[in-house]
Amino acid sequence: MDIEEIARKIRPLDEGAMARAKRRQDNLTKPKGSLGRLEDLSIHLAGIYRTDSPRIRRKVIFTMAADHGVTAEGVSAYPSEVTAQMVSNFACGGAAISILGRHVGARIITVDMGVAGNRDWPESVISCKIRCGTGNMAREKAMTTDEAKMAIQRGIELSLDMINEDINLIGIGDMGIGNTTAASALTAVFTDNPINEVTGRGTGVDDESLRRKIRTIETAFQLHRPDATDPLGVLSKLGGLEIAGMTGVILGAANRNIPVILDGFISGSSALVATAIAPRSREYMIASHLSVENGHSAILRALDLEPLLDFRMRLGEGTGSALAMPIVEAACKILNEMATFEDAGVSRKAEKT
Amino acid sequence: MDIEEIARKIRPLDEGAMARAKRRQDNLTKPKGSLGRLEDLSIHLAGIYRTDSPRIRRKVIFTMAADHGVTAEGVSAYPSEVTAQMVSNFACGGAAISILGRHVGARIITVDMGVAGNRDWPESVISCKIRCGTGNMAREKAMTTDEAKMAIQRGIELSLDMINEDINLIGIGDMGIGNTTAASALTAVFTDNPINEVTGRGTGVDDESLRRKIRTIETAFQLHRPDATDPLGVLSKLGGLEIAGMTGVILGAANRNIPVILDGFISGSSALVATAIAPRSREYMIASHLSVENGHSAILRALDLEPLLDFRMRLGEGTGSALAMPIVEAACKILNEMATFEDAGVSRKAEKT
Repeated sequence: MDIEEIARKIRPLDEGAMARAKRRQDNLTKPKGSLGRLEDLSIHLAGIYRTDSPRIRRKVIFTMAADHGVTAEGVSAYPSEVTAQMVSNFACGGAAISILGRHVGARIITVDMGVAGNRDWPESVISCKIRCGTGNMAREKAMTTDEAKMAIQRGIELSLDMINEDINLIGIGDMGIGNTTAASALTAVFTDNPINEVTGRGTGVDDESLRRKIRTIETAFQLHRPDATDPLGVLSKLGGLEIAGMTGVILGAANRNIPVILDGFISGSSALVATAIAPRSREYMIASHLSVENGHSAILRALDLEPLLDFRMRLGEGTGSALAMPIVEAACKILNEMATFEDAGVSRKAEKT
Repeated sequence: MDIEEIARKIRPLDEGAMARAKRRQDNLTKPKGSLGRLEDLSIHLAGIYRTDSPRIRRKVIFTMAADHGVTAEGVSAYPSEVTAQMVSNFACGGAAISILGRHVGARIITVDMGVAGNRDWPESVISCKIRCGTGNMAREKAMTTDEAKMAIQRGIELSLDMINEDINLIGIGDMGIGNTTAASALTAVFTDNPINEVTGRGTGVDDESLRRKIRTIETAFQLHRPDATDPLGVLSKLGGLEIAGMTGVILGAANRNIPVILDGFISGSSALVATAIAPRSREYMIASHLSVENGHSAILRALDLEPLLDFRMRLGEGTGSALAMPIVEAACKILNEMATFEDAGVSRKAEKT
């Protein structure tokens, strides 16, 4: 699957479908605009799906996992082994995303994009392992440019495969000890914000580790001189493999006119990479929530996306994506199922004569 | 059903259940606190249900309808007949709340608390009509004190009846042309804010009608001198019947340790009345969303409630309550179903030695 080809064939939203959806919203039995963001969302979905009666059929969340060599610098509160342990937890159905996926009726697809060590996963985990974790960005490139490409291509393939199976709503999420360091580095590059302003506590590091995390990214920047106009180069220098995989999922979905629900900070950084490769992919994104992780608001500002929820969450895994799914479905149903003033015989607002 | 008796027997939340729920949350496979408000909500629900494994069984939303004599002053953009037309729309399943109720699996119970005219409703509409709309607050009392009491009692009865049928999550919502005028008046009384600061455009009146709406409430205040320490008196002076009904639903639910999800501005004003009657009922409330209607933020501040959603909605009917229900369920499921670190064999955060 050629990345450039996929990116080039992402279409602008269907303005005609959006205009028709807007007209229908204005005829439904409620004061115009009184369902606020639910109406806006339904019109956005009409533009993505290219129809004024968008319907959600089947839903999936890709939870992509990988390890990060940069953990050697002491940037995380948890040991690297937790990445693999959590993948097992996803497979057993005991993690937060397992519970929320069941709750909203979304299939959770756990993908090993680059977990450290060779693993015998249960059948439910898809292995797209590019390598056993990234290299330490402070000392070397996280991966080669070819590996970055391959990881994106795997994401695109997964996305297209699912869409061929009639999935028409995709969420993304991440698991990877150390990945807030990679995401902060990517955010600094692509939003052009100072490193210290987009670097936070991740799973909960103390002040000293936070300073170390910032210094580590500074060292990596001095070593690699990342250039925002070369997204594959940036990704290969800073990582990570799960971020590259999510980038691919976004590109594949946008190519096929399917919306992608972003989770928090890590999936947001993959959205920055996707937008750097294919600016138009941004139009297919829905921001589920505002993470408390420093830097997420900078991402959403750069993408010009307004999050649906503000729950002070910072877990990842796709938990925000899952919570947003019933809202996306509600928006479609309002547009499709509500009675119009004519249907219901309800009087309209008195207009000035 | 004696209002005072019901109010007196509302218990404080169960602190023990909340402490146990908090301990369990801290042992689940995620960084402590990383699910933010979902964790807080689960602990709140543990306190309400008096168990550390709260489970949602069956859900109902009461959509209470009534007319308002104050519409004679030209305070609404829609004619009064729309109240009855919308009740028919609820019964036919074509209104926003009908669609959202089906979407979230909640039964919608439409209640005629005081729609103008004598109506032959379809069987699905419950008639608790106290009178055919309120009197015009600018010229007379909206209702007698006995009528206000009766309306609250009907709400309590409905609430207890449903709880006896194993309903354990209740949402409230409203329909009533003119009811933002009553709600603004109540909000000014109970939050002690100036009338013009808590009066908004409702279904969408223009500047001139907004000024008339404010003057109408000022006139009513000069006529009735409402006193916040006499909640039944205030309610009888200003209305409305659906607001009184929702007040009763809240009191009944709180009395039986069942949470009540508030919708927007109108249901918020009923929450102010409920709190004035029984301050402890506040602990059983969940704020679904922040309405764009002027004055709703003053209500939430007075109740010290943080809304779950901010979707720029202003429809009422219980639409916000419905959207919040899957979130409430998610909070319970996270608490009950997630694996602990021990269960899943996941390493904990490295602690300082």
